[in-house]
Amino acid sequence: MAAAVEVLAEVGFDALSVAEVARRAGSTPPAIYRRFPGKTELVTAALREELSLIGFDVPDLGSLRAELLMWTRSVAQALTPERLRIIAALFLASRQDPIPTESLGAHLQSVAVPAWRMVLDRARDRGEIGSLPAAYELIGQVAPAVIVNAALMLRPQDEATLVSLVDAILMPALRASPEPISTASRWNDHD
Amino acid sequence: MAAAVEVLAEVGFDALSVAEVARRAGSTPPAIYRRFPGKTELVTAALREELSLIGFDVPDLGSLRAELLMWTRSVAQALTPERLRIIAALFLASRQDPIPTESLGAHLQSVAVPAWRMVLDRARDRGEIGSLPAAYELIGQVAPAVIVNAALMLRPQDEATLVSLVDAILMPALRASPEPISTASRWNDHD
Repeated sequence: MAAAVEVLAEVGFDALSVAEVARRAGSTPPAIYRRFPGKTELVTAALREELSLIGFDVPDLGSLRAELLMWTRSVAQALTPERLRIIAALFLASRQDPIPTESLGAHLQSVAVPAWRMVLDRARDRGEIGSLPAAYELIGQVAPAVIVNAALMLRPQDEATLVSLVDAILMPALRASPEPISTASRWNDHD
Repeated sequence: MAAAVEVLAEVGFDALSVAEVARRAGSTPPAIYRRFPGKTELVTAALREELSLIGFDVPDLGSLRAELLMWTRSVAQALTPERLRIIAALFLASRQDPIPTESLGAHLQSVAVPAWRMVLDRARDRGEIGSLPAAYELIGQVAPAVIVNAALMLRPQDEATLVSLVDAILMPALRASPEPISTASRWNDHD
């Protein structure tokens, strides 16, 4: 699995050869093909294992701001240059085979969204935010997206930017009026 | 220039050959080398021309929300699959040659930031926001970053997401208390 991730980051999905992965893993292509029907399944499984190494979970730190800072820093640390090369390479290969990218995306969501949701649920329980904003998943994409984007453009990510993400964007968005107008009027209908 | 962008999106920077660009443009490699010392300069010039085709400018629509919606839609339309493939390919090639990516990043900033700034200046003049937020450039990266990120993960971008970006993230961030505490106390010192 580690060898597959390594080769993927170096040469991309198109140029990845099962023989090269086998060579680095001290194995043989037939041994790999016994476990995985093909390259797509090998890469998908390798990414799944790689993702399981990323810890998105944030412990209770007593305040929403502290947890958002920790979450944002974890995301920045998780998005290593090697992982960004894998994302870019899979995207380029997705015209021929979208499965590894779709699998990566679904898996990232399934790991990151519950961790994000837990931070917000705790903030609501503490009374720091009114209720879970309708757009909470979209708000959760902001920090990863800005960090990925800066890295793609080779812009260095500094601590001040991560703090600004939390104070100038995430906190205001999470504290904004939680109920859209349409929901508010639906509540009125019940009266 | 168009041929260079086309080849770049198809095969990436590493595999781009000046001969192939010449063939598609109905030209010859020597003719290209007369204008550009090498591949890096050719690609950089081609990206500059491609970027000049993108209109980031938003006319005065009378309200910040309307202009943010138009700006967000323009960004989503400008980020075509071909352009995203170019961004991904240049990023992958940046270990060998960072110049095309740096040039693309600097040029994008130089085009997008003034257009974004103009939208915010108008909102301030209308009294819709107090003053230009200190993090206004970072807030300006949110919509492009979320759109790029969704596209990299092959998640379809729908109109509802763009509206949520504006209403649930950009508007609250731009309307949040514009002065950080340290600045506010500096103002008090003048009294």
